[in-house]
Amino acid sequence: MSDDLQVLDSGTVTTPKGFVAGAAHAGIRYNPNKYDLGLLYSEAPCAAAAVYTSNRVQAAPLLITRQHLADGRAQAVIANSGCANAATGARGLEDARQMARLAGRRLGVAAEDVVVASTGVIGTFLPMEKIALSVERIGLSAEGGRDFALAIMTTDTLPKHLAVRFGPYSLGGAAKGAGMIHPNMATMLCFLTTDAPVAQPYLQETLREAVDASFNLIDVDSDTSTNDMVVVLANGMGGGESIDHGHPLAGAFREAMLLACQSLAKAMVFDAEGASRLIEMVVEGAASLADARRAAREVVRSLGVKTAVKGADPNWGRVVAALGNSGCELALDRLTLWLLDGEGEDLCLFHLGAPHPFDEARARALLRQREVRFRAHLGLGDASAAAWGSDLTEDYVRLNSLYTT
Amino acid sequence: MSDDLQVLDSGTVTTPKGFVAGAAHAGIRYNPNKYDLGLLYSEAPCAAAAVYTSNRVQAAPLLITRQHLADGRAQAVIANSGCANAATGARGLEDARQMARLAGRRLGVAAEDVVVASTGVIGTFLPMEKIALSVERIGLSAEGGRDFALAIMTTDTLPKHLAVRFGPYSLGGAAKGAGMIHPNMATMLCFLTTDAPVAQPYLQETLREAVDASFNLIDVDSDTSTNDMVVVLANGMGGGESIDHGHPLAGAFREAMLLACQSLAKAMVFDAEGASRLIEMVVEGAASLADARRAAREVVRSLGVKTAVKGADPNWGRVVAALGNSGCELALDRLTLWLLDGEGEDLCLFHLGAPHPFDEARARALLRQREVRFRAHLGLGDASAAAWGSDLTEDYVRLNSLYTT
Repeated sequence: MSDDLQVLDSGTVTTPKGFVAGAAHAGIRYNPNKYDLGLLYSEAPCAAAAVYTSNRVQAAPLLITRQHLADGRAQAVIANSGCANAATGARGLEDARQMARLAGRRLGVAAEDVVVASTGVIGTFLPMEKIALSVERIGLSAEGGRDFALAIMTTDTLPKHLAVRFGPYSLGGAAKGAGMIHPNMATMLCFLTTDAPVAQPYLQETLREAVDASFNLIDVDSDTSTNDMVVVLANGMGGGESIDHGHPLAGAFREAMLLACQSLAKAMVFDAEGASRLIEMVVEGAASLADARRAAREVVRSLGVKTAVKGADPNWGRVVAALGNSGCELALDRLTLWLLDGEGEDLCLFHLGAPHPFDEARARALLRQREVRFRAHLGLGDASAAAWGSDLTEDYVRLNSLYTT
Repeated sequence: MSDDLQVLDSGTVTTPKGFVAGAAHAGIRYNPNKYDLGLLYSEAPCAAAAVYTSNRVQAAPLLITRQHLADGRAQAVIANSGCANAATGARGLEDARQMARLAGRRLGVAAEDVVVASTGVIGTFLPMEKIALSVERIGLSAEGGRDFALAIMTTDTLPKHLAVRFGPYSLGGAAKGAGMIHPNMATMLCFLTTDAPVAQPYLQETLREAVDASFNLIDVDSDTSTNDMVVVLANGMGGGESIDHGHPLAGAFREAMLLACQSLAKAMVFDAEGASRLIEMVVEGAASLADARRAAREVVRSLGVKTAVKGADPNWGRVVAALGNSGCELALDRLTLWLLDGEGEDLCLFHLGAPHPFDEARARALLRQREVRFRAHLGLGDASAAAWGSDLTEDYVRLNSLYTT
């Protein structure tokens, strides 16, 4: 990571110049103390890029946002929690369009320049009258970024936001996601803003790359929602030449994007439903990057690994079985596996195809840490990747088996 | 299903003529009241076929069995629980070979005609002296099929066995598997026997087909073990012409194989770790058989669906999201979803792309049954498939997070 990057934990989507935001309790969710509707606005039109869920069932707001971003431009975001507006047919599509119109009217921008996002219960309709009333009374300010992050939370226990400074610019982010969430919520949303001027194709390329190395490498429960969306808006209000391939800050922008996405992705895993620990799996020596990612992700997805880590059980066989289950190229006699202690005194569990004697008490102590790290070397090539997952606890089951109504 | 098939719930692998079996407590597992070593022997040499785990980490017994079955012949099986002999390097391979030699010597058959199977903890070595002593004292009889089924159990709470009569022949089966099992066990084993004479290529073809429509369509925790193995032995002792394509009983044999595999597969799901309910997902109207199976399996794999069913929560959105997540061809406006009541009074939850009003109390009552059945019609083609999964409970987490040692 470049030394030029500076992370601001208290930063938000309104840290970059020219962005304002705000939130309200519209009554989509029952709890009157919880914001459930957020607005984000840029004083200047923005280059915009997005990455959407791979689920073939795509929620209405996602379909509308895709239309609105077809020209690579946007100027505002309206987002709600409490209702996913997914599997809601023609009425749902009209509701999503109406949300964009309401936000556009309130902010003085075309509805086509508004990004619409929803998260919450699948198969229920949005209370459009409540939303119409609330959009009018949301106050927008440069301090509103945290309220925006609060508005998109569902079972998240903490708002997730940050900003990264690179050169004269900054990149802000807000995200939500804590697994497939009670009741019936299943969404990962992330909004990024920057005052850097960025060429739209480069913005899209950089976002795709950062998402592949962050949100696509985390796992809470293997379920990909109907509403997942990561959007970035670049308003150029920091001035200067447009960032593109070859620009002196192109690399710094890429790194800032990756850092923001990985930090927000890990924050989701830390806050995963019922989770007690974060599992990091580093795979090295893989035959290809795709293999390294597949292998790392399968380990953090495995329920066997998740439950072993929950119990601080040094069941390394489950990690080996998950690597084998990933479909990556693998030769057991070249595989070595360690449990990391973060201070260079790593514990070798399996060495070139055979069990390796280790101190079980020390292994258990390492497995009781808040972050549990495994490293595997496949001995086949030069590719490496990391993935992050939550452990699986009784609380996850409890949270997810509560009634919808 | 043909009327000619007769299922014997009390049948076992020794129901077909010429098969004998037995078991012992060798001391691989601690509990002295639990058999942990089983032998199965056919009085005549058998045509043999097998299907193995797709996990790239394959346990030693599986590698040795693969070698022994290369000629499509076998005459005996030795199987243990308590130790998977997986990820055990060169020593593990030699131990698996030695198990075959011990069984061969005891039974008077070549070691190469012995199938070796193990299930239990990954990464530990077999206590070969205990096994050598116990092989000698296992008594074999035509009533030993149930003991054999008991010997391969790990956290299974019930032995799983049956026999199917077709024409003058019978097909017997024993299986084990209850998920990824405490502590660190992760194996599905199934042994089938028949006194029908069956051409080896036809035997392999029929087994593959039956496995694809049964064991490959169940899900407890999405983890595919290093030791999974389904083996069928056909000794021909029932006499008659060899069964092959075109034989009058070819179809009946296929059906018997499918019935046996599906019954044993469902028995595994019913007995899954911590499970309180069986979830059956029927997908109809799919564009292809592969799509139908993928879709059905993804629904029973989804932790969202598993936890909703556990809570008897009519969260149909999770089923729709899982269908979308399966990667099958899908058009939401052609999709209809029902909760089945088994008496033709099915409850429609989602109709051609939009939520369908339903009686929630009735939905909850249906979700509280021991078998919960969903049916989806994709409206795209003629292909259909069913898959079976367990629900996910706090007990699953508890069982799987206990210490290995």
